[in-house]
Amino acid sequence: MVDVGEKPASRRRALARCEVSIPKAMLAAMLDSNWRVAKGAVIDTAIVAGTLAVKRTHELIPFCHGLPVVACRIGIDVCGDGLLVIECEVGTHARTGIEMEALTGASIAALTVYDMLKAMGQGIVIREIKLISKVGGRRDFGPLASAPVTERAGATP
Amino acid sequence: MVDVGEKPASRRRALARCEVSIPKAMLAAMLDSNWRVAKGAVIDTAIVAGTLAVKRTHELIPFCHGLPVVACRIGIDVCGDGLLVIECEVGTHARTGIEMEALTGASIAALTVYDMLKAMGQGIVIREIKLISKVGGRRDFGPLASAPVTERAGATP
Amino acid sequence: MVDVGEKPASRRRALARCEVSIPKAMLAAMLDSNWRVAKGAVIDTAIVAGTLAVKRTHELIPFCHGLPVVACRIGIDVCGDGLLVIECEVGTHARTGIEMEALTGASIAALTVYDMLKAMGQGIVIREIKLISKVGGRRDFGPLASAPVTERAGATP
Amino acid sequence: MVDVGEKPASRRRALARCEVSIPKAMLAAMLDSNWRVAKGAVIDTAIVAGTLAVKRTHELIPFCHGLPVVACRIGIDVCGDGLLVIECEVGTHARTGIEMEALTGASIAALTVYDMLKAMGQGIVIREIKLISKVGGRRDFGPLASAPVTERAGATP
Amino acid sequence: MVDVGEKPASRRRALARCEVSIPKAMLAAMLDSNWRVAKGAVIDTAIVAGTLAVKRTHELIPFCHGLPVVACRIGIDVCGDGLLVIECEVGTHARTGIEMEALTGASIAALTVYDMLKAMGQGIVIREIKLISKVGGRRDFGPLASAPVTERAGATP
Amino acid sequence: MVDVGEKPASRRRALARCEVSIPKAMLAAMLDSNWRVAKGAVIDTAIVAGTLAVKRTHELIPFCHGLPVVACRIGIDVCGDGLLVIECEVGTHARTGIEMEALTGASIAALTVYDMLKAMGQGIVIREIKLISKVGGRRDFGPLASAPVTERAGATP
Repeated sequence: MVDVGEKPASRRRALARCEVSIPKAMLAAMLDSNWRVAKGAVIDTAIVAGTLAVKRTHELIPFCHGLPVVACRIGIDVCGDGLLVIECEVGTHARTGIEMEALTGASIAALTVYDMLKAMGQGIVIREIKLISKVGGRRDFGPLASAPVTERAGATP
Repeated sequence: MVDVGEKPASRRRALARCEVSIPKAMLAAMLDSNWRVAKGAVIDTAIVAGTLAVKRTHELIPFCHGLPVVACRIGIDVCGDGLLVIECEVGTHARTGIEMEALTGASIAALTVYDMLKAMGQGIVIREIKLISKVGGRRDFGPLASAPVTERAGATP
Repeated sequence: MVDVGEKPASRRRALARCEVSIPKAMLAAMLDSNWRVAKGAVIDTAIVAGTLAVKRTHELIPFCHGLPVVACRIGIDVCGDGLLVIECEVGTHARTGIEMEALTGASIAALTVYDMLKAMGQGIVIREIKLISKVGGRRDFGPLASAPVTERAGATP
Repeated sequence: MVDVGEKPASRRRALARCEVSIPKAMLAAMLDSNWRVAKGAVIDTAIVAGTLAVKRTHELIPFCHGLPVVACRIGIDVCGDGLLVIECEVGTHARTGIEMEALTGASIAALTVYDMLKAMGQGIVIREIKLISKVGGRRDFGPLASAPVTERAGATP
Repeated sequence: MVDVGEKPASRRRALARCEVSIPKAMLAAMLDSNWRVAKGAVIDTAIVAGTLAVKRTHELIPFCHGLPVVACRIGIDVCGDGLLVIECEVGTHARTGIEMEALTGASIAALTVYDMLKAMGQGIVIREIKLISKVGGRRDFGPLASAPVTERAGATP
Repeated sequence: MVDVGEKPASRRRALARCEVSIPKAMLAAMLDSNWRVAKGAVIDTAIVAGTLAVKRTHELIPFCHGLPVVACRIGIDVCGDGLLVIECEVGTHARTGIEMEALTGASIAALTVYDMLKAMGQGIVIREIKLISKVGGRRDFGPLASAPVTERAGATP
C-alpha cells in the first residue's frame, strides 16, 4: 500500500458511472413491472448492494486504504435506448482519494441489476465503468456532480 | 432468493469476460516494466483479488446463493490496441448457476488493475463485462472455454 | 462446534419471526409515504439486509456451521396496532439445522427497519424474536410456514 | 446514506439493552453449570460475538456509516425470573451516532446465547431490544450508563 | 485455484498445532487469575476467534477452496515451561483437504492469546505452527488426533 | 475492548516478523521456478493476502480496535538456510497501537506461502512470529525498521 501517513486528511469526493445495456424486450418488461421481479425490487436492491460494496472496497481491492465513507449516493436511471445508467458518488475525509469506492459501488450495483434480470434471458452487458470526477486531492478531475444524470425522485427510474 | 431446494445438484461452469481500456502511454509503460508498479505486481494482484471476489460473490450480490467454488481460473492478456482482456472461468457442483461468480471475479480483477495503474493518470475505462458461456444448467449458453483468449503461460501477459 | 460429520445431510427448513413496535405517528407517516424515507425503501432494504445476514450467520454466531442456503424468504407486514411483523423462512440441504439463520435474518431485517426509521424519533423496540418452526432434523417443531402471516404481494406491506 | 461530511466529529456513546427469556429448567441448568455447555462458555462467547458484531455493524445494516469504535462493553446478567439481560455500550469519535452498533451488538450477543442453549430445548425468546441512551449528538437521549444493570465482576453472571 | 471438480468428496480431517511462548512472570499471573484479564477470558476468547477463523480461511488464503466445516475443536493447554500449546482439529466432507483451515484456526487463536496478554508486557512469541496430521485424502499424514495434547475438560487449561 | 476514547490519536508504526522453514528440496525448486507454482506467484500472492489481512485484523482478533491503516509494507526474503523471512510493517494515526495488525499480516502471509507450497510435500513450519518494534504509543519498543532484513527490489526474493 502507498504510505499516506504524511498526507493531511482532506474532504474528498468522487463520482463514477457505468452503463448496463439491457435487451429491448427485457427493458420494456422492466418498465411495465416498475422494476420489480420475483426476486425483489431491482433498483432498490442494486442501490443497497452498491452502498454496501462502497464500504467494503478495501476488502476487495488489495492495496486500497480503508476510508471513512461519510456520503454515498447511488442513482440509477434509464438513459437513452436500452441503457441503464448507474452513478455512484461518494465522500470521505481522508488522506487519500475515494475513487475506487465510487467505481466499486457502481460496478456492484450493475452486477446486482444483472443478477436480478438474468432469469429473463441473455444479452445484458455492463459497459463503460469510469471515473467522472474526483475532487479534494492534489489532482482534481472532472466536473463533480455538477449535473448528475440521475436526479432520482423516489429512487426508482 | 429463488428456492433451488428441489433442483438437483449438477456440475456447472461459467466463463465471463471484460476489457480494460488503457491509455497507450500507460500500456507501453506497463509492458516496459513487466506489469510491475510501486504497489506490486499488477496482473498477479488482479488474479488474487478476482479469485477472492469469486468466493465472496454471495456476500456482494444480495440474492445470489452461496456455492462451493471448485475451480477458478482468471486469465489476463493484452489483446489488440490498448486493451487488456480479463477472463474468469469458474466451476461448481451446485443446484444453481455460477455466472454471477464469473462476472464478479472478472469485474473485481478489472477494478484491481484500475487501482494499480491509476497513479499513472486518468483515462482507464472498464468495458464489456459479459457472460461468454455457461454449461451444466437447464439453459446452456455459448462455447465454454473452447478457445480461451488467454492461454496464460506463466500468469503474466 | 458440534461435530456433525457423522450425520446425514437432509432437507431442512426453519421459520423465525419477530416484531418491530413502532410509535403510532411514525407508523402513520410510513403508511403515508409507502415506506419510503430519505435513505431509501424501508421494506426492500430490510429484506436485502436480512437475506445477506442469513448467508453470513456462521460468521456472526461463533459455533454455527456454515450451511448452503438454498432458499430464503423474508416477509414484512403491518400486523395489528403499531406492529410490524417480520418473518424469515430459510431452507438448506445439510447435516444440521438452519434455525440460527432464520433468527439472524429476522433480527437483522428488524435492525435495518430501526435504522431506516430512527431519524423520525425514539421509541422503536424490537420484540419477540423466536423460532416458529423447523423441519427436517431429528426434532421437528411447529407448523412450518403453514399459514404465513405475510403473503406479500409486491413486497411492501 | 445520509451525508454527514459537514458535521463535526464528536465523542458519542450509546447503550442498548435486550432480554433473553429462558425456560426455567434451562436457566437452572445453566446456573448449575456456571454457564458452560458442550460448545463452550456461554457468556464469554456471547460477549465476543457481540463485540465482533459491533465492529461489523456497517456491513450488516446497509445505510450505516462505518465508525471507529473506541469502546465496547457488553454486560450479561440474570435479572429477575428467567430473564437474561444483555447490555451493550459503545463509544466512538465520529460525525454520526453509534446507536445501531449498540443495538447490533446486543442482538448478536443474544442470538449467540440462543445458539449455545438451543440444544437443551425450545422456548427461548429474545425480547425488548431497545436503545437506552445515547449522548454526544444533537439529540441526546436517556441516562447513559448511569447505573448499568450489569456491574459484571468476572464477566459471568 | 486448483480445479477439484473431478475429485470425489470424502470425509477429511486435519490437526494443526502451534505454541505460544509466554514470559514466566506473565504465565504465572495468568495461572493465578485463571486466564482472565481485563479484556475478558483469554482461553475462551481464543477458542472463539480460532473457530471463526477456521470458517473464513478461504477468505484469508487466496487460493483455498471454501469447505463445509463439519467439525472444529480447539484445545489450549499449558505444556512444559512457559509454553501454551494450541491444537486445532477440523473436519469436512469435501473434494479437497482441510489443513489450511486447521493451521489458520491455530494461528488466529494464538494471535488472540497474544492480544489478550500483550498489555502485560513484551516477549510473547508464536512458534512452530505446523500440521500434525491429515486424513481422508490421497496422501494421509501423521497420527490424527490419536493422543491429543489437550484433553480439555471444561475448556480452560 | 479497552476504552481508548480518552487517548489522543498519534502516528504509530509497528513491525512484526516471522519465519517459514521450508524443506531444502522444496526451497531449491522454488528458487529454480522464481517462486511461481501452478497456483500462481508465491511471493506476490502472500503479500496481497497479508495486506488484506492487516486491514481485517479487527474482524479476526475479537478485542482489537479497527484502525485506519495508512501504510503497509510486507517484505519476504530468503534468509539463511531453508528459511523464508517475512516482515510486515504497518502504520496508522490512531488512539491505540497497531502491533496486532503487523503480527496478523505476517502470519497470514506465512500461511499463504504454506498453502502455495503444500502440494510439493510436508515439512513446512511457521516459526517465531513476533513483534520487532512499535513506535508512537506510550511504550515504544525495538528499533523500528531501522534495518529491514528485506530491502525488496522487485518484490520477489
